[in-house]
Amino acid sequence: MLDYKLLDALVAVIETGGFERAGSELGLSQSAVSQRIKLLEARLGQPVLVRSPVLQATPAGQRLLNHAQQVQLLERSLSRTIPALNADRTRLRIALNADSLATWWADAIGEFCREEGLLLDLVIEDQDIGLRRMRDGDVAACLCSSDTPVAGARCVRLGQMTYRALARPDYLRQHFPEGLTPAAFRDAPAIVFGPHDQLQHRFLAQQGYHGRFPFHLCPSSEGFVRLALAGMGYGMIPDHQSLGEVKAGRLADLAPGEGIAVDLYWHYWRHGGDFMERLTTTLTRKAQGCLTV
Amino acid sequence: MLDYKLLDALVAVIETGGFERAGSELGLSQSAVSQRIKLLEARLGQPVLVRSPVLQATPAGQRLLNHAQQVQLLERSLSRTIPALNADRTRLRIALNADSLATWWADAIGEFCREEGLLLDLVIEDQDIGLRRMRDGDVAACLCSSDTPVAGARCVRLGQMTYRALARPDYLRQHFPEGLTPAAFRDAPAIVFGPHDQLQHRFLAQQGYHGRFPFHLCPSSEGFVRLALAGMGYGMIPDHQSLGEVKAGRLADLAPGEGIAVDLYWHYWRHGGDFMERLTTTLTRKAQGCLTV
Repeated sequence: MLDYKLLDALVAVIETGGFERAGSELGLSQSAVSQRIKLLEARLGQPVLVRSPVLQATPAGQRLLNHAQQVQLLERSLSRTIPALNADRTRLRIALNADSLATWWADAIGEFCREEGLLLDLVIEDQDIGLRRMRDGDVAACLCSSDTPVAGARCVRLGQMTYRALARPDYLRQHFPEGLTPAAFRDAPAIVFGPHDQLQHRFLAQQGYHGRFPFHLCPSSEGFVRLALAGMGYGMIPDHQSLGEVKAGRLADLAPGEGIAVDLYWHYWRHGGDFMERLTTTLTRKAQGCLTV
Repeated sequence: MLDYKLLDALVAVIETGGFERAGSELGLSQSAVSQRIKLLEARLGQPVLVRSPVLQATPAGQRLLNHAQQVQLLERSLSRTIPALNADRTRLRIALNADSLATWWADAIGEFCREEGLLLDLVIEDQDIGLRRMRDGDVAACLCSSDTPVAGARCVRLGQMTYRALARPDYLRQHFPEGLTPAAFRDAPAIVFGPHDQLQHRFLAQQGYHGRFPFHLCPSSEGFVRLALAGMGYGMIPDHQSLGEVKAGRLADLAPGEGIAVDLYWHYWRHGGDFMERLTTTLTRKAQGCLTV
């Protein structure tokens, strides 16, 4: 078996962001932690950490971290049968889309985390990268809009989010005075989450527009809404985030009734044991109160 | 001089996220775009794009993109003297901290963007990476809490944001029944933005606590507040984001009067010309209404 003392050192260095802090977490000196990392690297024949530009795990190191999480999950299931084991707090690394994290996610998972003492290590990724991280063993679960399961993982549908093209009312009057014309789409600045954001293109295609358009790039859910509220552009915003603003008349719908529904799927490893199954059951149930089923 | 036709193709591929869309943006066939990228790579002797896991610029490609932005900025200054030039819309790549983007940023820059037709390409980075991206020529400006200027760039202070340790009132009663004791800090889950988040450590040090503590990792400003509102932990939240929640009694202050003030600095290249100077003047003025001076 692996030497879990060495793995613990790696987990501590990454979680605390430094050798000295990892030492004080483990009750070791900084140089003892450093020794353990070096030994781990010697056994692996490759580095598990890079120090520049910031201290982080190499791909191999990341796989070890995920393995440590999986083992913790199994220990946790075991400790329900043998309570004396009293397994440490589990931390679960989960990839999810930014809009879920900015809206309903905490409401759906909060109670489970509080009751089980579960800690989360959340990573924001779009679905291609999120699923790839699943495949690479870098995360224990992934919440995204793809229903293609990863080999060895289960995939359950949680519900859907609806996105609408919204902008400030005065922005609409200024940039779409004659409605959703091709000329207006060509000149009106949009707000796009990232270069791989397909929602804006789907919306434009739905409106029969396939040409170029000017856009801001804003990879933050909250920032996205702020840019729209500042009259800088129009963009696809989920109902979860916009309801208050639309009700108050601060944002208006470009194409009422033409929202785009996006399904959300929860991917998780089969060998996560009983704990992961219970988390999934809770999430499926809670999501019904948060998402459109 | 560089062949800007080739550079335009690279800009279009990255901005549209694909060769076909870049072609329709430039009025070229997909294969013509592909030819131009190949030619650019042949002249450089190295790739400018990678296709997997997602289409993105290589470090060399990114430097070319930034150079193209700088040239656009200069053209823009020129077109004020020679209006007939009618320079295209400028897009500015800016690195900034997530909390600014989630709060005051759009209010400070919105009007300038609207009036000047400026488009933003925003990148969320903590300050070490943001400044490194400046040095690498990957962004035109950087908003962060470091006052160390990058060689060739100017640095101006915009103001400060104040962070306080906040949690749900029932969370405080449950986890800190006897106040901010070491035993409470050892067991109460915190929420931390990322492994390099120094605010949580600064707060704990200020309270005389230097031991380990359990924490969730949540790299999203809005998600951070949601986790706190779901009673999952306490965390350092800027006043900009919390005022409403604190007023409504949904979040409470762990250590009233012991907020941590973080200064924010705007770094920008000296050779950005008149346009960049005007943007900086506006930002400095507007920030006074958004930040504590």
